[in-house]
Amino acid sequence: MSDSRVSRRRLLSTTLAAGAVASGAIATTACAPGATKDRGHSELLARQLLGVDENGTDLTLAYLKILIDTGLPATDKPKKIVVVGAGPAGLSAANLLAEAGHQVTVLEANGNRTGGRVKTFRGIFTDPALYAEAGAMRLSSVQPMVLALADKLGVPRRPFYNTDVLAETRTPPTPPVFYRSFTGEEWSNGPKLRYVPPPAAGRSLIKVNGTTATRGEYAANPGALHAGFGCELTTSSSAALDTALRKVAALHNQPIERQVEAWAELLSTYENHSLRGYLMEQGWPKKRIEAIGTLENLTARLRHSVVFPLVDHTLIPSDATYWELAGGMASLTDALAGRLGPAILMGKRMTRLEQTDHGVRIWTTGETGDEGSDGQPTGPAESFDADYAIVAIPLTAARFCTFDPPLSYDKRRAIIELHHDAATKVLLEFRSRFWEQGPTGFRGGRCVTDAPNRSIHFPSHVADSDGGVVLASYTFSDDAMRWDSLTEGERIHFALAGMRELFGARVDTEFTGVGITQSWVRARYALGEAAIPTPGQLHDHHIATRSVEGRTHFAGDHTSLNTAWIEGALESGVRAAVEVHRR
Amino acid sequence: MSDSRVSRRRLLSTTLAAGAVASGAIATTACAPGATKDRGHSELLARQLLGVDENGTDLTLAYLKILIDTGLPATDKPKKIVVVGAGPAGLSAANLLAEAGHQVTVLEANGNRTGGRVKTFRGIFTDPALYAEAGAMRLSSVQPMVLALADKLGVPRRPFYNTDVLAETRTPPTPPVFYRSFTGEEWSNGPKLRYVPPPAAGRSLIKVNGTTATRGEYAANPGALHAGFGCELTTSSSAALDTALRKVAALHNQPIERQVEAWAELLSTYENHSLRGYLMEQGWPKKRIEAIGTLENLTARLRHSVVFPLVDHTLIPSDATYWELAGGMASLTDALAGRLGPAILMGKRMTRLEQTDHGVRIWTTGETGDEGSDGQPTGPAESFDADYAIVAIPLTAARFCTFDPPLSYDKRRAIIELHHDAATKVLLEFRSRFWEQGPTGFRGGRCVTDAPNRSIHFPSHVADSDGGVVLASYTFSDDAMRWDSLTEGERIHFALAGMRELFGARVDTEFTGVGITQSWVRARYALGEAAIPTPGQLHDHHIATRSVEGRTHFAGDHTSLNTAWIEGALESGVRAAVEVHRR
Repeated sequence: MSDSRVSRRRLLSTTLAAGAVASGAIATTACAPGATKDRGHSELLARQLLGVDENGTDLTLAYLKILIDTGLPATDKPKKIVVVGAGPAGLSAANLLAEAGHQVTVLEANGNRTGGRVKTFRGIFTDPALYAEAGAMRLSSVQPMVLALADKLGVPRRPFYNTDVLAETRTPPTPPVFYRSFTGEEWSNGPKLRYVPPPAAGRSLIKVNGTTATRGEYAANPGALHAGFGCELTTSSSAALDTALRKVAALHNQPIERQVEAWAELLSTYENHSLRGYLMEQGWPKKRIEAIGTLENLTARLRHSVVFPLVDHTLIPSDATYWELAGGMASLTDALAGRLGPAILMGKRMTRLEQTDHGVRIWTTGETGDEGSDGQPTGPAESFDADYAIVAIPLTAARFCTFDPPLSYDKRRAIIELHHDAATKVLLEFRSRFWEQGPTGFRGGRCVTDAPNRSIHFPSHVADSDGGVVLASYTFSDDAMRWDSLTEGERIHFALAGMRELFGARVDTEFTGVGITQSWVRARYALGEAAIPTPGQLHDHHIATRSVEGRTHFAGDHTSLNTAWIEGALESGVRAAVEVHRR
Repeated sequence: MSDSRVSRRRLLSTTLAAGAVASGAIATTACAPGATKDRGHSELLARQLLGVDENGTDLTLAYLKILIDTGLPATDKPKKIVVVGAGPAGLSAANLLAEAGHQVTVLEANGNRTGGRVKTFRGIFTDPALYAEAGAMRLSSVQPMVLALADKLGVPRRPFYNTDVLAETRTPPTPPVFYRSFTGEEWSNGPKLRYVPPPAAGRSLIKVNGTTATRGEYAANPGALHAGFGCELTTSSSAALDTALRKVAALHNQPIERQVEAWAELLSTYENHSLRGYLMEQGWPKKRIEAIGTLENLTARLRHSVVFPLVDHTLIPSDATYWELAGGMASLTDALAGRLGPAILMGKRMTRLEQTDHGVRIWTTGETGDEGSDGQPTGPAESFDADYAIVAIPLTAARFCTFDPPLSYDKRRAIIELHHDAATKVLLEFRSRFWEQGPTGFRGGRCVTDAPNRSIHFPSHVADSDGGVVLASYTFSDDAMRWDSLTEGERIHFALAGMRELFGARVDTEFTGVGITQSWVRARYALGEAAIPTPGQLHDHHIATRSVEGRTHFAGDHTSLNTAWIEGALESGVRAAVEVHRR
């Protein structure tokens, strides 16, 4: 007990030190010409990426303990804190601070739900047992915080099959969460259990350039599909991409400071590279880039910074497993929101944040409905006073808020310039899970097509229903913007047409007529899918996203380097809670 | 008469030869690995850019004569031709072919208007005399085709003031169109008249980083505003950008083949550069890029290919003037459409194009309303048979059409991959033109702000009204996508708020309550503003946009290198008409 308190205290001080660096020293460095080439800057990004502070503390482990085991120490000087945004970042920060004895209010723009970009469509399908994900839909085994939080809150986890399995596959028992730190320390929420994922069936389909093959056929003979692109590659698209992008895998068991050094070098070297530019530098011909872009659903992200693909392919081991939550991902944010109860005020959209040396005042409009409805911010203005604020909304939403005094130059630049991507989903309900039937049947996984649908995902779980909801189109960036131009009805029509190309006319007889779509660009409280940097933007803007501004702290997945993952949102929520708690 | 017929014949044969190269030889070259580095490819792009074919024919001059003076020669073998899309490309092609004796049908998806991205909002403002542009809003003096076409069709031209002038400025007489070819030949539609544009007033405002200055003040002391960015530059943003981007201005009077060579070299060298990457290579520090991006409304386009900015800054002389059309830009497309009359079928959206060795069949759905309304393509399907088709719709729209047999690999790739940008306008009606009043009054021009509005344009003309419509926000790319996330009501609210920062509370009392917005990404028949290539895409995809596929030809501004301009659409319309006429 005394030990854990000591280590907690050490953690808090080092974390705060890191925060101070982020808000002060770095902001200065970034002002000098040529600062983007600064090696210290790359090192700071590498530390955030690896979750290690200047003192060698494993921040993932530290945050995991705070979030799951200990909470924050009870405060002896309770503060009044307003948290803006009830997504997983805001909700986790608010819970930690409230449990430590602070007086917390959460302001949420949506009038009818919390969760942010964690959003489950429920009660809209013909069969009330069915639901589907509008936003986050999978968790990874390398994300201990979110997995352990679900376990702690009693939200059952189930496998999410990134690759299809046999339809008759029985769900294996769910193993506890296990995290091994680079310090050698291990963390678990149950007895160690080796999880053996079910074998891939290889029956989901790939249709490109007019040729259809199963994943199994593609794996056996990748060249056949590649030929349609005029591409000579004979290894699979995922293997080729892994070879090109897995840069420092050998460092995995090296001392952490050696890893920081290697990552700083890597980030600095590829700071200004797009994924396309990087692959060209690796000697990839145009046709191979086109083939792999199509097969890996990366076409529209070729122009983005190579840094995130590098991180994904290097830090996520190839045997990582994926998970989903029973009842939908919103079960997690619902549980977090439930613990806060009336501390969450719905339908309050921040329009203005004023702060002095003594406190913060936040102005809101009254909103009704959710992010999909029409409206304009003319509801009654209200204000909320606090000692400190945590702004846990996307930068895109902050773009339409006024800050008085203005935010720092670097923060303003991040809000103005950081690229936010488009992502659009079209979900269709079918009377039966016809794709699971017969000798070609499969469960989970995804089909790939060069039709506008691009990626078609099938449910990993068997709901209490004969039917199922298929994610008939999941697109990003420019691919998604094409769908964003269409109406809801047209999206459903064209998504069904794309499925017909793979599964024939039975899609029409099986379709219940109920479909729903989610464009994250059209969601007026999210204003985009996630902050995905274009070349140079990680160095130019990332540090400023989390810098403290007076009495205002910032959270959200975009302030972490686990961008677009719930894990990143939780990491940022714990960090911001620690920052505010310590003031 | 006989002379002109000979020169016309020569033109047609050389043009067709160029077309054959584009559809055949180049497609082959582009299949080979490393083809993007091919110098012949860059030369072909340079020829398209300069409008000169392999025989040294000035295509701009040739097309100008066809469009304005001669038309196509009367055909002795009339063909049945379907033109898909009634924007300026489709309308100009259809007019030329119909006048030459072919049987032409135009299919337009919109149920209530032609014009495509030429769209004038009329009859929606409090004062019926007022109108405003949703799309194309200016023409340049370096665009002889569109200027001469307006003159020919009797649509009066008026100055468009890119830079503000004194409110009391009297409109100078409109000079005729004058074009001087690199061959030495001159073309004009009236007696030469030197046009002296009225002097700039320099009274429009710039507000960045909390500091406001007039353009005059900024010109006198650029450093004061630059300091807010931490940028040391002491020349104006436009001068700095011109210096960085004007690469081969000295070549202007060189022989055309020397210019082709220099441009091929330039295009090849900067094929894979973004604007940001290019400026960094010129030694620009981050802060200068941020400052100039903001002041020149280029922030969101920094990640795009540098090729178009290079072209703009090199080929458009600094003394170019700008023009608008009385009654709005749609006056031009209305006049073109009027000449076709019942040959245009409204509310027919192409869903499928079938072709054999003998003909083309185009399937459409019935549509009602315009691109802003909800709907789904379930109207009665109809088909239209023809000898040849001209597809003059954006590539984004073609993405949701089926082609049987499938289009060539390179064309499919262009449709899938070519980036299309976002552009969004918010237009507000005011009771009086308050910005024109008093000692600080100005007409036309634009204010610049780092608020979400970014660019605020004021009318150049004095309508028969006390009021006026201000383009309160004009944004591109990511800047536009922020607005695309908002509802119509919110866009109007926030655009007014941004104007209030510059003009104070009088914007609220002067606002009539009527505003309208145009998001080109949300326009479901346009699906974006224009094809703006990201690094590498000009070489990867441009040639394929105009390649002939069987009996199907392609037009639209994206098939020219005058992308996003009416001039480019007209150029493509003439080219496609010549191609089809010759078959």
